[in-house]
Amino acid sequence: MKFRKKLILTLIALLAANTVQAQDLTAEIVQNNLNYIWTIIAACLVFFMQAGFALVETGFTRAKNAVNIIMKNVMDVSAGGLAFFLLGFGIMFGTSASGWVGTDGFMLMEIGDYSVEWSYTFFFFQAVFAATAATIVSGAVAERTAFNAYLIFSILITAFIYPVFGSWAWGSLFNGSGWLEGLGFIDFAGSTVVHSVGGWAALAGAIVVGPRVGKYIDGKPQLIKGHSLPLAALGVFILWLGWFGFNAGSTTTGDTSVALIALNTFLAAGAGATAAMIITWISGGKPDGAVTLNGVLAGLVGITAGCANLTPGFAILAGAIAGIIVHYSMILIDKKVDDAVGAVSVHGVCGAWGTLAAGLFNTGDMFNMSIIGVQLLGIAAAFLWTFPVSYILFKGIDMILPLRVNGHLEEMGLDLHEHDAEAYPEFKPKLIA
Amino acid sequence: MKFRKKLILTLIALLAANTVQAQDLTAEIVQNNLNYIWTIIAACLVFFMQAGFALVETGFTRAKNAVNIIMKNVMDVSAGGLAFFLLGFGIMFGTSASGWVGTDGFMLMEIGDYSVEWSYTFFFFQAVFAATAATIVSGAVAERTAFNAYLIFSILITAFIYPVFGSWAWGSLFNGSGWLEGLGFIDFAGSTVVHSVGGWAALAGAIVVGPRVGKYIDGKPQLIKGHSLPLAALGVFILWLGWFGFNAGSTTTGDTSVALIALNTFLAAGAGATAAMIITWISGGKPDGAVTLNGVLAGLVGITAGCANLTPGFAILAGAIAGIIVHYSMILIDKKVDDAVGAVSVHGVCGAWGTLAAGLFNTGDMFNMSIIGVQLLGIAAAFLWTFPVSYILFKGIDMILPLRVNGHLEEMGLDLHEHDAEAYPEFKPKLIA
Amino acid sequence: MKFRKKLILTLIALLAANTVQAQDLTAEIVQNNLNYIWTIIAACLVFFMQAGFALVETGFTRAKNAVNIIMKNVMDVSAGGLAFFLLGFGIMFGTSASGWVGTDGFMLMEIGDYSVEWSYTFFFFQAVFAATAATIVSGAVAERTAFNAYLIFSILITAFIYPVFGSWAWGSLFNGSGWLEGLGFIDFAGSTVVHSVGGWAALAGAIVVGPRVGKYIDGKPQLIKGHSLPLAALGVFILWLGWFGFNAGSTTTGDTSVALIALNTFLAAGAGATAAMIITWISGGKPDGAVTLNGVLAGLVGITAGCANLTPGFAILAGAIAGIIVHYSMILIDKKVDDAVGAVSVHGVCGAWGTLAAGLFNTGDMFNMSIIGVQLLGIAAAFLWTFPVSYILFKGIDMILPLRVNGHLEEMGLDLHEHDAEAYPEFKPKLIA
Repeated sequence: MKFRKKLILTLIALLAANTVQAQDLTAEIVQNNLNYIWTIIAACLVFFMQAGFALVETGFTRAKNAVNIIMKNVMDVSAGGLAFFLLGFGIMFGTSASGWVGTDGFMLMEIGDYSVEWSYTFFFFQAVFAATAATIVSGAVAERTAFNAYLIFSILITAFIYPVFGSWAWGSLFNGSGWLEGLGFIDFAGSTVVHSVGGWAALAGAIVVGPRVGKYIDGKPQLIKGHSLPLAALGVFILWLGWFGFNAGSTTTGDTSVALIALNTFLAAGAGATAAMIITWISGGKPDGAVTLNGVLAGLVGITAGCANLTPGFAILAGAIAGIIVHYSMILIDKKVDDAVGAVSVHGVCGAWGTLAAGLFNTGDMFNMSIIGVQLLGIAAAFLWTFPVSYILFKGIDMILPLRVNGHLEEMGLDLHEHDAEAYPEFKPKLIA
Repeated sequence: MKFRKKLILTLIALLAANTVQAQDLTAEIVQNNLNYIWTIIAACLVFFMQAGFALVETGFTRAKNAVNIIMKNVMDVSAGGLAFFLLGFGIMFGTSASGWVGTDGFMLMEIGDYSVEWSYTFFFFQAVFAATAATIVSGAVAERTAFNAYLIFSILITAFIYPVFGSWAWGSLFNGSGWLEGLGFIDFAGSTVVHSVGGWAALAGAIVVGPRVGKYIDGKPQLIKGHSLPLAALGVFILWLGWFGFNAGSTTTGDTSVALIALNTFLAAGAGATAAMIITWISGGKPDGAVTLNGVLAGLVGITAGCANLTPGFAILAGAIAGIIVHYSMILIDKKVDDAVGAVSVHGVCGAWGTLAAGLFNTGDMFNMSIIGVQLLGIAAAFLWTFPVSYILFKGIDMILPLRVNGHLEEMGLDLHEHDAEAYPEFKPKLIA
Repeated sequence: MKFRKKLILTLIALLAANTVQAQDLTAEIVQNNLNYIWTIIAACLVFFMQAGFALVETGFTRAKNAVNIIMKNVMDVSAGGLAFFLLGFGIMFGTSASGWVGTDGFMLMEIGDYSVEWSYTFFFFQAVFAATAATIVSGAVAERTAFNAYLIFSILITAFIYPVFGSWAWGSLFNGSGWLEGLGFIDFAGSTVVHSVGGWAALAGAIVVGPRVGKYIDGKPQLIKGHSLPLAALGVFILWLGWFGFNAGSTTTGDTSVALIALNTFLAAGAGATAAMIITWISGGKPDGAVTLNGVLAGLVGITAGCANLTPGFAILAGAIAGIIVHYSMILIDKKVDDAVGAVSVHGVCGAWGTLAAGLFNTGDMFNMSIIGVQLLGIAAAFLWTFPVSYILFKGIDMILPLRVNGHLEEMGLDLHEHDAEAYPEFKPKLIA
């Protein structure tokens, strides 16, 4: 409180002095303060996305696995945050002579030209991004993956898989640049860096861990309904809210450039929802709730790369196409791979689309084949790095710990087996299985 | 990321230079940046109110209609946001020679003296307001209205009904002024412009669509309980949070004027809840949960018009009176009109009260009959524009599409019929009907 | 809207003029505006913690008492906010000749050297803190305490118990200082001032009101499961979000000092969750969901005092230790006192630990016995003031109104008895009791 008091008294003094201290407090200092405040508020919004993911994943799966999913989400940001502090941040943003991986900045030591306070701010913002990539995986492999095995992968993606790709596209800020970044790769807030990386890791996980009991009968995919659409919908609204921080906060600068980004984020999500609803209405006869909600997320992922370099009209177009893509992608992937919440389609596929759209519709230089080529290279690089490495790591973990819970225990629910808990001990379920 | 990197490097340069660039970065520019940041953060909070409305409306109605209500809320802001982009914004804020309707600014083209970035920011803030007006209707007509018919009305109110009245009271910023505004009408953040307009449209909808099956037996209103008070309560807390953006963000300026507004918003809501609780305790013997929650909303609606021109003491008074009004208004309206969540009372009636209170308790010029007269004129104009036009539009929609689902399907629940879905497929309901 | 329009026009003028008005708008004024905006946004986040508490307490208790708990939380901030306006703020921050209690500033009159707008801002921020202290009590005494009796205590703690201790540690900003503050007591954002005070009052309440029916069989504590872990988890995420406002907003200044605080808050919570999960895994064989969620809160309480004067590494340590403490503290207290949600352990015990940690790990002057001594004195003072006074007040209330509902009614649930309501009227419960 002494410090606190000092700050308030300083404020009062400033108010009293007003012009006297003009040589001390400059517009540059105030702008710098504003940059900090904006970045920290944006980081808080991105942090809140963890609640959104937890609700979406819980709502779209069965009640008997709700505690397990929540535990995974809490740990993605808790243990994941610590792992990013120890290792990930340095790999992603440390000095990189090669352009392939950072080699210092671990635990925020040796932070180069950063000010100490800015390293704190920038780390906080980047740590909640890293947690997002991890959390994407948890939804795809939900309802049958062992908690301890998942936890190891969650730490590995936050500490290693995500930061390595991140260093290629965003990293090494003050000492050379990542190789992809050097080519002019456009991914402003992470359609590829965060969402595709999370999505392709999720695909690897879903393949290695295999489908849930009862998902395929005679090779045909069965619909396994989620237990609470209201929770899932609340999760989508929270994610949409958090995405304003995700996209507009990626300026890390509190100025007028955030306006276009926030607007594009708003419009693309609405277009994604609207397009997804219409496509289910046309193709299935009724407007589908779950697909419409995924349409919001698809629109958001689809504008994440290009939120700063598309006009609002093209943001609407990019979002609408994402909303259509996500519907067909979920149908297609579902034929062979059991992705419990559609995470591969929403984040992996729409992340690739968003990255392409950022090149296609680049304001002032549209349909430039050289830009589009770099975008395609980045999209391919994300897949070629993330999918095989994740596949190998999931397989490796499975050799040490069983990645998957026993089928009988899976039918009982992971909550009982893994946590000795029930999410809703008082409500009588309709079905025992 | 190139842009992103550029911004960060600029920041570092600024920090290094500090005084050298003093002629470039002025206090005016930083203040302008702060205005953007504040308005965008406030818009995010207002956006989040959509989640609040979705939860309040879902929680206060039956589980069998939860998916339907959520779909309506998602579409109010998704399709509604696009409609406001295409049409509504221009009607509300475009050039208006007459003072009755704007005629340019559609799709943010021809934005007059706005800077482009500011038009993005201002649009985002206004679009989430427009979505609020639409969403108010969805609660009142819940549990029996066809989804396609509702969707058409939702787009019409966002693109046309709301913006026309908005242009009278707030619009035409740079080219003359709306006629109500010209008379000195006080409605700072929209007790009338947003809430009464939403409320009177909701009244028209509830009348045209008619009561739910089982609502009136021998002409007597029956209590149809909502299925989840915890979800409704969470919705109210989210709305309360969002309202700080709604009211204090309406400055669209990041300065000290937000302080009084935020404080009044906090106190009036608390007073509304406290008064509503006490009145139910006195009149019914027990403090009622649902009415107390509506008392929070009533207090918020009741301070929205006068949040910037009432002292905190009068904000408490205005909120407390709103909390009492909402209780009696709900009882009265319930006798004849089936408003599933009390939206007409909360938004329509308390919106009128809030607008009157802004005149009555106007700091520095209280109980001035000329001011009060203009307030009453604005209240009347909102009703006389919104109710008949909404009534006619609902009737017109009903001639093309049936506005109402078949009684048997209504009893089964709109989720099954309209969306082939269940909100909670695992929980065994107590009652089949 | 006239005011609103004026503001926008002013902005446009500023943009046009840019350098002309440089003598009017100074960096000091803009910084002051930024301080307001930051403090108000932080206050909004702290306000939202009420939703978090409501969900945590509801989720961790039984469905039959959910309406009652929500009503208590709504009233803690509604009636509590009014009580803090009338009395609490003056007691806490008014002029204090003695250093023991403030004597003016009630209803924001006689605010000394504050500007009027700043008094609004500061009050709003402090009022939501006061509501937090009150809400802590509601969880501990949940499921058996009469609503009217609770309401009286809630108002008393907000208007009197909390502000008196607050004035010792934080108060009397411009006229002398509180006696604890004068000694150099470190409690930046309130591990002791808010959380321990709330926790010790909760302990007194839980003792006086006695355990729930069925809690102890043959003197052995029984596990009474909460009805919705997903709601509790959402509540924890909301609290974590709000805590960034709680800690970093306590600067009440929008500058770079918020960076370390936000980072420490993020890391300590993650460390608390991770440590709590590990300890339950080791000691109980499985990672426990409810304890892990309480580990998040423990980590947050544990860094609240020292968030501005610990390095990130020690923030992790303080949070991790809090996560371990909360597990054992809950087991220990549960043997004798029925605290329905673990509030005494999370807020009381971890609040004491956090205050000690702020002294132990004080950057630049670690393990200084004189600092540690003052911290211990503050910890003791909080207990010696809060526990006996709360105990006496609970006993006194019980003499006028029965503090506790009748055992049979308790088994039926407080919702029916106290509010004539059901939280989930449609879901069939598994057990009748």
